[in-house]
Amino acid sequence: MALHQALAALSLATVSAENAEATKTLIFKPKTAKTATPIPVVVLALQSTQTPSGAIAKAAGVKEPRLAKDDLIQEFFSTTAQEVSIAQFNKSLAGKIKILIDENIVNAKDDQVLEISTATEKATLTVAQVKGFLKQTEIELIEVNFANEANASTAPTTSESKKDQLKKEKESSKLEDAKLIGITVDKAKDFSSWYSQVVVKGELLDYYDVSGCYILRPNSYSVWEQIQDWFNIEIKKLGVQNSYFPMFVSSRVLEKEKDHIEGFAPEVAWVTRAGSSELEEHIAIRPTSETVMYPYYAKWIRSHRDLPLKLNQWNSVVRWEFKHPQPFLRTREFLWQEGHTAHLTKEEAATEVRQILDLYARIYEELLAVPVVKGKKTENEKFAGGDYTTTVEGFIGATGRGIQGATSHHLGQNFSKMFNISVENPEGNDKPRVFAYQNSWGLSTRVLGVMVMTHSDNKGLVLPPRVAQTQAVVIPVGITKNSTDEDRKAINDGASEIESRLKQVGVRAIGDYRDIYTPGWKFAEWELKGVPLRLEFGPKDLAQGQVVAVRRDDGSKYVVKLTELETRIPEILEEEQAGLLEKARKDFDTHRVVVEDWKDFVPTLNAKNVILSPWCGVPECEDDIKDSSAKKDNGEDEEVDEKAPSMGAKSLCIPDQQPTLKPGQKCIKCDRDAVTYCMFGRSY
Amino acid sequence: MALHQALAALSLATVSAENAEATKTLIFKPKTAKTATPIPVVVLALQSTQTPSGAIAKAAGVKEPRLAKDDLIQEFFSTTAQEVSIAQFNKSLAGKIKILIDENIVNAKDDQVLEISTATEKATLTVAQVKGFLKQTEIELIEVNFANEANASTAPTTSESKKDQLKKEKESSKLEDAKLIGITVDKAKDFSSWYSQVVVKGELLDYYDVSGCYILRPNSYSVWEQIQDWFNIEIKKLGVQNSYFPMFVSSRVLEKEKDHIEGFAPEVAWVTRAGSSELEEHIAIRPTSETVMYPYYAKWIRSHRDLPLKLNQWNSVVRWEFKHPQPFLRTREFLWQEGHTAHLTKEEAATEVRQILDLYARIYEELLAVPVVKGKKTENEKFAGGDYTTTVEGFIGATGRGIQGATSHHLGQNFSKMFNISVENPEGNDKPRVFAYQNSWGLSTRVLGVMVMTHSDNKGLVLPPRVAQTQAVVIPVGITKNSTDEDRKAINDGASEIESRLKQVGVRAIGDYRDIYTPGWKFAEWELKGVPLRLEFGPKDLAQGQVVAVRRDDGSKYVVKLTELETRIPEILEEEQAGLLEKARKDFDTHRVVVEDWKDFVPTLNAKNVILSPWCGVPECEDDIKDSSAKKDNGEDEEVDEKAPSMGAKSLCIPDQQPTLKPGQKCIKCDRDAVTYCMFGRSY
Repeated sequence: MALHQALAALSLATVSAENAEATKTLIFKPKTAKTATPIPVVVLALQSTQTPSGAIAKAAGVKEPRLAKDDLIQEFFSTTAQEVSIAQFNKSLAGKIKILIDENIVNAKDDQVLEISTATEKATLTVAQVKGFLKQTEIELIEVNFANEANASTAPTTSESKKDQLKKEKESSKLEDAKLIGITVDKAKDFSSWYSQVVVKGELLDYYDVSGCYILRPNSYSVWEQIQDWFNIEIKKLGVQNSYFPMFVSSRVLEKEKDHIEGFAPEVAWVTRAGSSELEEHIAIRPTSETVMYPYYAKWIRSHRDLPLKLNQWNSVVRWEFKHPQPFLRTREFLWQEGHTAHLTKEEAATEVRQILDLYARIYEELLAVPVVKGKKTENEKFAGGDYTTTVEGFIGATGRGIQGATSHHLGQNFSKMFNISVENPEGNDKPRVFAYQNSWGLSTRVLGVMVMTHSDNKGLVLPPRVAQTQAVVIPVGITKNSTDEDRKAINDGASEIESRLKQVGVRAIGDYRDIYTPGWKFAEWELKGVPLRLEFGPKDLAQGQVVAVRRDDGSKYVVKLTELETRIPEILEEEQAGLLEKARKDFDTHRVVVEDWKDFVPTLNAKNVILSPWCGVPECEDDIKDSSAKKDNGEDEEVDEKAPSMGAKSLCIPDQQPTLKPGQKCIKCDRDAVTYCMFGRSY
Repeated sequence: MALHQALAALSLATVSAENAEATKTLIFKPKTAKTATPIPVVVLALQSTQTPSGAIAKAAGVKEPRLAKDDLIQEFFSTTAQEVSIAQFNKSLAGKIKILIDENIVNAKDDQVLEISTATEKATLTVAQVKGFLKQTEIELIEVNFANEANASTAPTTSESKKDQLKKEKESSKLEDAKLIGITVDKAKDFSSWYSQVVVKGELLDYYDVSGCYILRPNSYSVWEQIQDWFNIEIKKLGVQNSYFPMFVSSRVLEKEKDHIEGFAPEVAWVTRAGSSELEEHIAIRPTSETVMYPYYAKWIRSHRDLPLKLNQWNSVVRWEFKHPQPFLRTREFLWQEGHTAHLTKEEAATEVRQILDLYARIYEELLAVPVVKGKKTENEKFAGGDYTTTVEGFIGATGRGIQGATSHHLGQNFSKMFNISVENPEGNDKPRVFAYQNSWGLSTRVLGVMVMTHSDNKGLVLPPRVAQTQAVVIPVGITKNSTDEDRKAINDGASEIESRLKQVGVRAIGDYRDIYTPGWKFAEWELKGVPLRLEFGPKDLAQGQVVAVRRDDGSKYVVKLTELETRIPEILEEEQAGLLEKARKDFDTHRVVVEDWKDFVPTLNAKNVILSPWCGVPECEDDIKDSSAKKDNGEDEEVDEKAPSMGAKSLCIPDQQPTLKPGQKCIKCDRDAVTYCMFGRSY
């Protein structure tokens, strides 16, 4: 939401979009002596105004203006051509750039609304707001009547919007142009922009006009469907049934479990009106469904023979966070499954908590090829209202931060006592009633973000084969101007045959037979979208009865005999799946460092690691570790280098797999005896 | 929501449930001479108060009070034991019943809150409200200190709540008791109560404490999953992809298409607050997603090569209707799928509209065994903002009313022009841009209601085998007190073997081996839950290598050789599936009557039919038909009999399959020429 935020920071409130006129912001680079610094020319015009380059040249007094490439735009505006807008203009640019402003804007009424858009966002401002803002930047403003200038000019027109321009270049045949549709920032250097580009350009999601909400496009939703299908089979084996509970919850019920609601209250979205009627009782949208479901558990569970009750639902929940939203990781509405079970005994419940946690670990490792560490949350970090929380924790190598993967909670009898989920004692009526032991467990679309952050690269998405919507794309290659129609047909037919043979053995294959694109352009597009395997089929392959398979993850090539197609391709996909997990596991293992001396703690953290340290288990000590590892304006500053993120290290989990504590081992931070190793790290 | 409504009608507003004390309302029948009219004794006490029958006898001055059966309760309170509450008390009962009221209630503070509950609902009132209300009924009130009375008594205790009592009787071994858990009203006589009992007791859904919202329990949600699985496969063949769009929509976007929003505005739920912060812009919860999705269609569709775009999503939508809610049919939140597609040509779009309609008809007929009539909606009844609407229309025989099944709309270019979903003309840049032709189509959990209303009976649910969560239940029979342990084991093992063999061939079978219930009780329970096939396995079957299969729909019995188990059971299930459809189709066909004379119109309607009549196609005439067929306090009253519902006949659809119009045929209602046959009926 960079545009809205930027405009807000500039104190430009966006206005109602009623009757808004679309605008365009184009950046041109004039022909400049190689030794001179170019002075970019910005064109701010109505979308409907034609802005030929001849007119631009004349009005700005420059030679051969051409649409600027990303490096220039990055240099001046710290963003890409697709994302640039007036929000990036400021006083520091005065004297360095020129703005040509469309007379149709200058002469419009002050309250005319303009739509300022980038490739991913749009906002609306009045003409008066735009003029006022541009004026205070002190950048040179030139008013242009493009219609007049255009008539006076015979230069080729550049009437297209950025979009059209992009599309034209996209459709041209040169491979190097493919980069224009690709990722323009380096994962290692600007992780946050890289991530945002990868998820949008890889068509996993799109930004939505309600902040913090995102659109899950088929390329990501299909991964979610794979996870659903797998998980449904596994939980049904455990006797869990799917169901659906309402998204609404009355305030009275929501607030019943005090500890629980405390954690959610500031983020609850409230419906207060329907049509034009105010509701008598305000109604919350579920942030999670414990309080939605448990009154009915109390009703349905009448006897110990009604236990265990194991229900799951796939739904969306709403947590109106005010922190910076991030695709998949922190969104105001998100999809998840939430399982809620009630058991007669603590042991049975405890067993299930772990069975579910194992399934979560398998989703990460077996489906998404993301290694995780299983463990238990500390008291500080556990689910409010529950007894204890188990978790799978992942690791994002590029930032050195931990990330919570999914959690499986044992709620003990806290909720069952609150909601009276009880049965007569199976040992006899004279014994006290037994309150059910409950679990709840959830896994959300956050998994998709972890998957992307772990595997994807500067070419775009990398999707693990098992969950990719498309596993293999067949691309005819080697067709040239000199190819005969027969050659062309033979190659296309051969490719199509490969596609259909693969489909028949369950490989999710497609063929890309579009003849307006070069193979190179197609390679780049499918790499961007993360398709795990590219199958190139050309004249040589036709002649030799083979196809060349190229793995998305590491580019390794396999020549596959067509006679072995149906066995080899699934094998290669599985090799790639294993390769992705292995690489990610090595990364996590290397960056999970045992630290036993506090002086090494922050430097190790700053070197993009998570840390395993002996710990006393005392909540206050955990707070102290977090505090002491955060960047502060005091004497401890020496402990953190300048580039480290400012946040302190949280406890991620107490891992199941523990290094052996030495006798007399002290806590990493305080003077108490250590009772366990705990995993700490900066985290998402 | 009878309880809330009843209390509201009595001007008793329910109060906050904070610290509410649960109460119970029990009806006792004292021993009475057969010729005398019994005087029921009502006990109104705190849930926690023990109310032994001895104490009741003493306080009320009666002999052997026993919990009253439904017929007595029906006679005095016009409801069932499970649904009775103080809301049913009124002056007409004065002198006919006595109320024993717990001293713990009488002596409580006036503002103490009491929870009044029935099996399906609860409400809260203050002690003062309850006392005031009881006083004005003029029913004899007797204050009782049950603790004292209990000590004074040696009679067996009846300390259980209605629930516990019910459970006890449920667990007893007599078949006739099974009726207590079953349906207590006749489908033919009180359809509305019957429906509500069937869906709740069949465990399809439960009522929820936010009015108009319901819980979909596994028995119904699994049917929905079957429909999802089937439909996903079919739409993927058509190139449709699944996705997920946010549930929120800003008012600005929602209101963009005026005709469209007009239809939804009064029902839109608005989020205005998050945590304790008022939102700057109020945000709607989608009533449908046209306006959510189409701005992004405009963004994604850049070239004719991006068409067609075909997305579907499974989600929930909210329409805050203020009309009387009804499970599955009219609910404020409901689950559905909504498909939204954009095409280059009108022809392609029109073809798809019909392909989808065919799939909807197949869901009804092939999965749910519900016959439907395909057709087109009139202008009055079409989707607002679209070009035309196609529909599948069902028929509920018990009420003689039509019901809309699912709709597939062709939106024309209305939305694409509003949202600028356009591409350059494939015939050349000089030609005008082409706006996409769009469709939207949706099928909701309403299908479950239609399925229930069509097939179920006075024994409970009848689920079509193809969608039933459990298709066959194996029940050991013929085990008596005299059976040896070996006999018992042989029968149970044989039943279990049948269950597992069926599972292996994909029949969703379970076994009911609980030994605390009699076979008869189990029969009734599984009939109530709608399981299509009961497999009885007893000593005779063991000896003869057979099992007896009993169909849920018509009770017909099949003796199946165990050697043929794997082939015969699936066949019988398919026969039952076909039988259900055939029966329902016959019903619909019989009650779809051609009427060509207006004088026959209302009488035919009142005889629980839908009507096919020649019609002029003029919207005003349609209004006139609706008006003239409604019950009114004027001269036309003679046209409607007393029992007919008051609503007029709507046009249901213009069926694809048309009787031939005679030359010169006039409209059924007006003087204009008929242009088509139209199906009219009272409807849901």
